[in-house]
Amino acid sequence: MSVSRVAIIGLGLLGGSVGLAIRERLPECETTGFDCDPLVRERARERGLVESVCETAQDAVRDAELVILCVPVGAMAAAAADLAPALADGAIVSDVGSSKKTVGETLRAVLPQAIVIPAHPVAGTERSGPDAGFASLFHNRWCILTPDQDVPEEAIGRLSDFWTALGAKVEIMDAAHHDLVLAVTSHIPHLIAFTIVGTASDLEEVTRSEVIKYSAGGFRDFTRIAASDPTMWRDVFLSNRDAVLETLGRFSEDLTAMQRAVRSGDGETLFRLFERTRAIRRSIVEQGQDDARPDFGRADH
Amino acid sequence: MSVSRVAIIGLGLLGGSVGLAIRERLPECETTGFDCDPLVRERARERGLVESVCETAQDAVRDAELVILCVPVGAMAAAAADLAPALADGAIVSDVGSSKKTVGETLRAVLPQAIVIPAHPVAGTERSGPDAGFASLFHNRWCILTPDQDVPEEAIGRLSDFWTALGAKVEIMDAAHHDLVLAVTSHIPHLIAFTIVGTASDLEEVTRSEVIKYSAGGFRDFTRIAASDPTMWRDVFLSNRDAVLETLGRFSEDLTAMQRAVRSGDGETLFRLFERTRAIRRSIVEQGQDDARPDFGRADH
Repeated sequence: MSVSRVAIIGLGLLGGSVGLAIRERLPECETTGFDCDPLVRERARERGLVESVCETAQDAVRDAELVILCVPVGAMAAAAADLAPALADGAIVSDVGSSKKTVGETLRAVLPQAIVIPAHPVAGTERSGPDAGFASLFHNRWCILTPDQDVPEEAIGRLSDFWTALGAKVEIMDAAHHDLVLAVTSHIPHLIAFTIVGTASDLEEVTRSEVIKYSAGGFRDFTRIAASDPTMWRDVFLSNRDAVLETLGRFSEDLTAMQRAVRSGDGETLFRLFERTRAIRRSIVEQGQDDARPDFGRADH
Repeated sequence: MSVSRVAIIGLGLLGGSVGLAIRERLPECETTGFDCDPLVRERARERGLVESVCETAQDAVRDAELVILCVPVGAMAAAAADLAPALADGAIVSDVGSSKKTVGETLRAVLPQAIVIPAHPVAGTERSGPDAGFASLFHNRWCILTPDQDVPEEAIGRLSDFWTALGAKVEIMDAAHHDLVLAVTSHIPHLIAFTIVGTASDLEEVTRSEVIKYSAGGFRDFTRIAASDPTMWRDVFLSNRDAVLETLGRFSEDLTAMQRAVRSGDGETLFRLFERTRAIRRSIVEQGQDDARPDFGRADH
């Protein structure tokens, strides 16, 4: 077994799912957990997200070989400082945050005694809180580790085995590159979705009830990801600013080109783009990263 | 029964679904159909999308009380001209196009002998072609009719009853207002999705294979709608130019404000928007316009 005792700090969608996945797939691994919200701790006990929900972070991490911080990126420094005094020397400290460069810097600064290996399981839903997690969340999803060069191979191997056991596929990547890749595949799509949902609800000429009624024409897909946890996403954008702004700049240029094509009636430019994007969809379905049923089967209900 | 003989011109996702829905829900209604592509006609016969697949549009519409044009908006004029000589006086001519003002003008100009009632069932999937249709596509979806003021109430009532029989909920709306509402709830989301998928596949620093691998972080939702039929969507943007440009302008302003908030580290502005957009999602799920399961149940597979 890669690790025999894991502490989970933060028991929302991600933390809860890690706990439930361990229970299902690594039943001999002991789990402790903590959340700074007493109501979340209570609900975590009721659902059995971890074997032992502790009243302090220090109680949770004492004797843990692996500590996983499942808190918003902006709360990482405080959460790490809170547990620091009780952390065993040589414990592996990891996380599940969506940006990795600033998180790695923060954890290494606050926890010099730990082996820090930032991690990002690319999985989630629009739900949040202690009721949102489920054991299969990481199944067939990628988990990206971004260790510094001086991290021992053995520790990387143990964390990698841990995530593989939970059903994920592991990839090692440079933190800066991770942040750029995720800016494209996750952060910018979320920022755009949040923005268009805001735009739609602010129009004077179209009522909010009309927007909701006719959302099946495409808009509803954006509202799903725009329902994600606000605190988590605020922190993602603030902590991955450079890559987000760089990618957003490219997108804006491309959107301006499309706008020009619409204005000038240039159907050929529109058609060329629209045809090209189908191929990417096909690859995503082929590689098991999405459901091939039309409309994800929604239309059948 | 509201109509006893319906002709469907264009046997792709929408035309095929209309045919299959009639067979299931209005079994006494006779259906004929035509598609300008002989391979589509062949496949339509094999699937039984309509009772009789004709070799010409004129054969299909002869004796039809209701003709539904299910062709891309840009092909509407040619399709209408093609069937015009065989159209019975007083037949109702309708369509399923995503923009309504230009379509209505076109049909009224080409078919002065017909009762033109443009229609838009707000339903679809990313699939296209004669294999894509299914009988329940319109179930619990809105169908918007945009008749001119001089159209007889009786004809509007018959078309409305027809769509209601197919499972849709009918709404009457001014064509220009329809085009603005749909620019927001459908056209702009599609244009944005097409654009971001293009942006992602053009980046030099991030490979296409990385974009595909890590798409579960949000990007895949955009690729689904960016896989929709290119011809159909080109025509939508060209035929609803003014409303699309107006809405796109608002979106761009809002996106610039978000960009500024990210650049200046203004977490409060980001948080305020992100929190607001959740409420809209909740209403969409409550009103049955989307599936409430996290991730539409995808994560359970």
